[in-house]
Amino acid sequence: MTGTNRFMDEALTEARAAGEADEVPIGAVLVLDGEIIARAGNLTRAGNDATAHAEMRVIRMACEALGQERLPGADLYVTLEPCTMCAAAISFARIRRLYYGAADPKGGAVESGVRFFNQPTCHHAPDVYSGMAETEAAKILTDFFLNKR
Amino acid sequence: MTGTNRFMDEALTEARAAGEADEVPIGAVLVLDGEIIARAGNLTRAGNDATAHAEMRVIRMACEALGQERLPGADLYVTLEPCTMCAAAISFARIRRLYYGAADPKGGAVESGVRFFNQPTCHHAPDVYSGMAETEAAKILTDFFLNKR
Repeated sequence: MTGTNRFMDEALTEARAAGEADEVPIGAVLVLDGEIIARAGNLTRAGNDATAHAEMRVIRMACEALGQERLPGADLYVTLEPCTMCAAAISFARIRRLYYGAADPKGGAVESGVRFFNQPTCHHAPDVYSGMAETEAAKILTDFFLNKR
Repeated sequence: MTGTNRFMDEALTEARAAGEADEVPIGAVLVLDGEIIARAGNLTRAGNDATAHAEMRVIRMACEALGQERLPGADLYVTLEPCTMCAAAISFARIRRLYYGAADPKGGAVESGVRFFNQPTCHHAPDVYSGMAETEAAKILTDFFLNKR
């Protein structure tokens, strides 16, 4: 896992744990002032919640923990390119920096799809850093879906 | 309120209640088999949750109540055109029909902005019916922001 850092490593750990729980293996951590303030994997199946993507979960957990509607200064690390829902939530939460692993041409919304952060209806865009640990992040997903077949 | 129906009336009631609680006055109800299964207004401020839009709240409430990850056959009534986050959540939840009131050129994502339901990265699109009670839905919002100044 060269080329990554400890926060993305923690997001990868969350992704693997999600996969072991039979959830789509995507993980995220939210960092503020150098500390992890929320960490989660996808939980749509066991959580019975179509919106329970890893990014949504860490944003909601952090908002609740801090008693804030927004998270300025917070950085999000996630193993896969955020989808349209999550990209917009990242914008609403005023996340400062977004670091993600693998690209997602089929469902992503940052460099793929609607490229939300470049749109006029996006009123806050984070700084984006992509491709961190992308090989490992993609492998976790590929292995999961291969095992499903 | 001619031109609307009882479900949109209930969504307008939720919008007004949200405004009285000093939240942005948008309301939604989710209907399955002719019955309201969830109803909510925005709750981002008091809920300390950037994702707590009315549509997200009723989707999450209904998923939890029914013990399901998705809501096929459910119809969503909301007073304002859904934003990018909510449009994607509506898609993930497999909502059957979307009825909304006022258009939102600045933040909407159905007829405005990214027009998510027309995009290749959208894998389920509801049938969309817009402009229901749009005058009243817009007035509730306009009055709210005028009072803020």
